[in-house]
Amino acid sequence: MNVLKVSSKSSPNSVAGALAGVIREHHEAEIQAVGAGAINQSIKAVAIARGFLSPSGIEIGIIPSFTDINIGGEERTAIKLIVKTI
Amino acid sequence: MNVLKVSSKSSPNSVAGALAGVIREHHEAEIQAVGAGAINQSIKAVAIARGFLSPSGIEIGIIPSFTDINIGGEERTAIKLIVKTI
Repeated sequence: MNVLKVSSKSSPNSVAGALAGVIREHHEAEIQAVGAGAINQSIKAVAIARGFLSPSGIEIGIIPSFTDINIGGEERTAIKLIVKTI
Repeated sequence: MNVLKVSSKSSPNSVAGALAGVIREHHEAEIQAVGAGAINQSIKAVAIARGFLSPSGIEIGIIPSFTDINIGGEERTAIKLIVKTI
């Protein structure tokens, strides 16, 4: 699955557009976010994407979990958000 | 529905415990969070609550939306997270 990596500087609108595209094609997407700012933008993006998808009768939900990732040789805990049609 | 108001200072573990209790009883809960720190704690709390509930065969997902709330006479945009069994 394509992983959308979201940062605190990502535009929620742009992420929402990308997310809606992946959901339409694959019914499921994965977002990876590290830190409060990135998680904030990710959740806003999903709220916006709901508005893009619901006119087509597509409802989405988020399943959050923790995941360890390696950034520049350092172990960091990221949040993985599986976004899928419900 | 009971609304769990989460702040940036809320403990994700405590919120997760409260959330799991509400989900077991009502199959649905609502979290209200204002700001990146509060949203971060909320998402961590749901990830932790999944671990409390999944041994009982209860899987949960989040449906996020924007909502306007009044804090001390000021209009603020909050994030509403509906957490429900899926």
